Amino acid sequence: MVAEVKGTVVKDTLYPVAKHVRTYTFNSLPLQLGDQFGPVTLAYETWGTLNAAGDNAVLITHALTGNSHAHDEKRPNDAKAAWWNPLIGPGRPFDTSRYFVICSNILGSCYGSSGPSSLDPQTGQPYGLRFPVVTIRDMVRAQRRLVEHLGVRKIAMVAGGSMGGQQALEWAVSYPELVEKVIVVAATAALTAQAIAFSEVQRQAIMADRYWQKGNYRPGEGPDAGLVIARMLSMITYQSEESMELRFARRAARQGDIVSPSGYADLGKRFDVESYLYYQGNALLKRFDANSYLYISRAMDLYDVSEGYASLEAALRRVRSKALFIGIRSDFLFPVPRVRRLAEQVSAVGGDATYVELDSPHGHDAFLKDWEQMNDALNVMKE
Amino acid sequence: MVAEVKGTVVKDTLYPVAKHVRTYTFNSLPLQLGDQFGPVTLAYETWGTLNAAGDNAVLITHALTGNSHAHDEKRPNDAKAAWWNPLIGPGRPFDTSRYFVICSNILGSCYGSSGPSSLDPQTGQPYGLRFPVVTIRDMVRAQRRLVEHLGVRKIAMVAGGSMGGQQALEWAVSYPELVEKVIVVAATAALTAQAIAFSEVQRQAIMADRYWQKGNYRPGEGPDAGLVIARMLSMITYQSEESMELRFARRAARQGDIVSPSGYADLGKRFDVESYLYYQGNALLKRFDANSYLYISRAMDLYDVSEGYASLEAALRRVRSKALFIGIRSDFLFPVPRVRRLAEQVSAVGGDATYVELDSPHGHDAFLKDWEQMNDALNVMKE
Repeated sequence: MVAEVKGTVVKDTLYPVAKHVRTYTFNSLPLQLGDQFGPVTLAYETWGTLNAAGDNAVLITHALTGNSHAHDEKRPNDAKAAWWNPLIGPGRPFDTSRYFVICSNILGSCYGSSGPSSLDPQTGQPYGLRFPVVTIRDMVRAQRRLVEHLGVRKIAMVAGGSMGGQQALEWAVSYPELVEKVIVVAATAALTAQAIAFSEVQRQAIMADRYWQKGNYRPGEGPDAGLVIARMLSMITYQSEESMELRFARRAARQGDIVSPSGYADLGKRFDVESYLYYQGNALLKRFDANSYLYISRAMDLYDVSEGYASLEAALRRVRSKALFIGIRSDFLFPVPRVRRLAEQVSAVGGDATYVELDSPHGHDAFLKDWEQMNDALNVMKE
Repeated sequence: MVAEVKGTVVKDTLYPVAKHVRTYTFNSLPLQLGDQFGPVTLAYETWGTLNAAGDNAVLITHALTGNSHAHDEKRPNDAKAAWWNPLIGPGRPFDTSRYFVICSNILGSCYGSSGPSSLDPQTGQPYGLRFPVVTIRDMVRAQRRLVEHLGVRKIAMVAGGSMGGQQALEWAVSYPELVEKVIVVAATAALTAQAIAFSEVQRQAIMADRYWQKGNYRPGEGPDAGLVIARMLSMITYQSEESMELRFARRAARQGDIVSPSGYADLGKRFDVESYLYYQGNALLKRFDANSYLYISRAMDLYDVSEGYASLEAALRRVRSKALFIGIRSDFLFPVPRVRRLAEQVSAVGGDATYVELDSPHGHDAFLKDWEQMNDALNVMKE
């Protein structure tokens, strides 16, 4: 996709971007860790219509390997056609007949927004590791520029899960005057040491791959094995012991022909859970950039909502939105006690916070699977 | 170390083996997955004296990267001098003034026993991947040959944690007539899908390393980055969210100079948990063979105590030992409900089984750390 905005070729990406994705480019963004970055392009999609007052916008924020395609208007009943498809549309929690729903690909990603695989206009080459370290706060700041550009004056709701939940929380803290309601799903004030540790193992697998080349790989010639291994590990952390047991237990692989990242044959036998992980890893290869994986997973680790404030309480006291926090019983990346505590902390400093727990065995990924429970939880926010 | 047994040079290892390690070599072992393997060498240590009846032997079985050095007679009060040091010695649960305590390095390992880094007498080269896939049952069969060689007629107690617990259980099922008491710590009848998944990610990290060379690396020129990454991941699974939070939380690294497996610098900052994991990974490099890691971790995955029997009940009905099962509250590799269930299943088929739970935040590794609780738990087995 080549997007021309104000006469500048901004982005040339190998990764699949949905047809109706538009882009917005602005010159420069001040970054949380210092310096400016620009030009910045955000790819985005919208559904529904912005009203004259500009106050019926809903912003949907996506997770690590997600993109702007949260909803598919042409296939609204195909849950796999878009990542939050069953929750978006006329009569659904994010009602496109009432709201102007926006979802933008985050800064650092590879689905049309500026990221390490974008071409640096200074050199004509992909940024690679010359791309700056970006944070959740930077992503939100960039989104703010986009929504202003779209004429939004008030955000009726911002909602997302996982890293999308981190963004939603950051919106409520950074721009309390703009956000009426916030829905934070399977996210916390900051990652645990364990979650950072899992994340770092994934990055090391990518960077130790000889094809990574300090990030200077050519498109299509990147650290495939490393990225597959990273995805295999992350898929474990997105599920739960319980769900993997329900789904795989110790069954032998039904598909023995899926290539493992090392390409090497099995020792003794192949378990079904192994071929599943190879499959998931290989699937990500086709649609995601390894450097984006490094930057975005790092942004999750670095996120601490209290950063720059006197305390966590001081940060959370800024929230003026009606807030819903959704935890997932079996989530071990964002454990339920921490999601609940975040809701309690917002309440404790005077906020209007509700906590709802999904009783799901599906682990972190439940927010992308358990549609009925998600629907019920989101209904809490209906007026 | 070069061990000459019956005139054959059996083993030439690069890995550190404690001084008083002895070896026993026999010609051939039938393997669970078919074929014979030989010659087989087991490295072992003993403490205390075998009585005339040959019935006061205690067999200690070690975990994945462990070895025969469970106890250090010269430094009995240094918990780090040997892996179960505080539990072994006069007056301790494994009382060397009463018992003849044996610990042997398992088949497949790299501390003096036959493993993939051993020299194949046919070629004079390390076996590498020509080493056969060995199972927990094979390891136990080999140990049986060793204890017979040592004149043992009855095993008063067999005890081990993690993979050592799998071996202890297998002893009680394979040789019920030989084992009077069995202590299974932090182990279950078979690994969960999640545990297999974590294990496979580790193996893929090793095999995807270009220096692995399909297992034909030269000693000292192996897949270092892959092995470090594998160890980083395993260290997470040996601990718990709770213990990592207590120890590291989100603190910045105090040691910024520890080299990461990829050798690449940090994105944004370095967390303390990250430098800890690099350190642990690098420490393993110096003392463990990557191919052994593949084979032994695979043996853990493959283990299912019921294999070859009509049912799990049929396998467990064979147990005649007084059995103690120790679970660790925060263990997520061998979850407490599964350890408890195993004890209940042994009881249900008429066995004498007791379950004790360590109330430790330290995860799976508690059996190598929480000495007081381990001591108390083991006292259950005192007459």
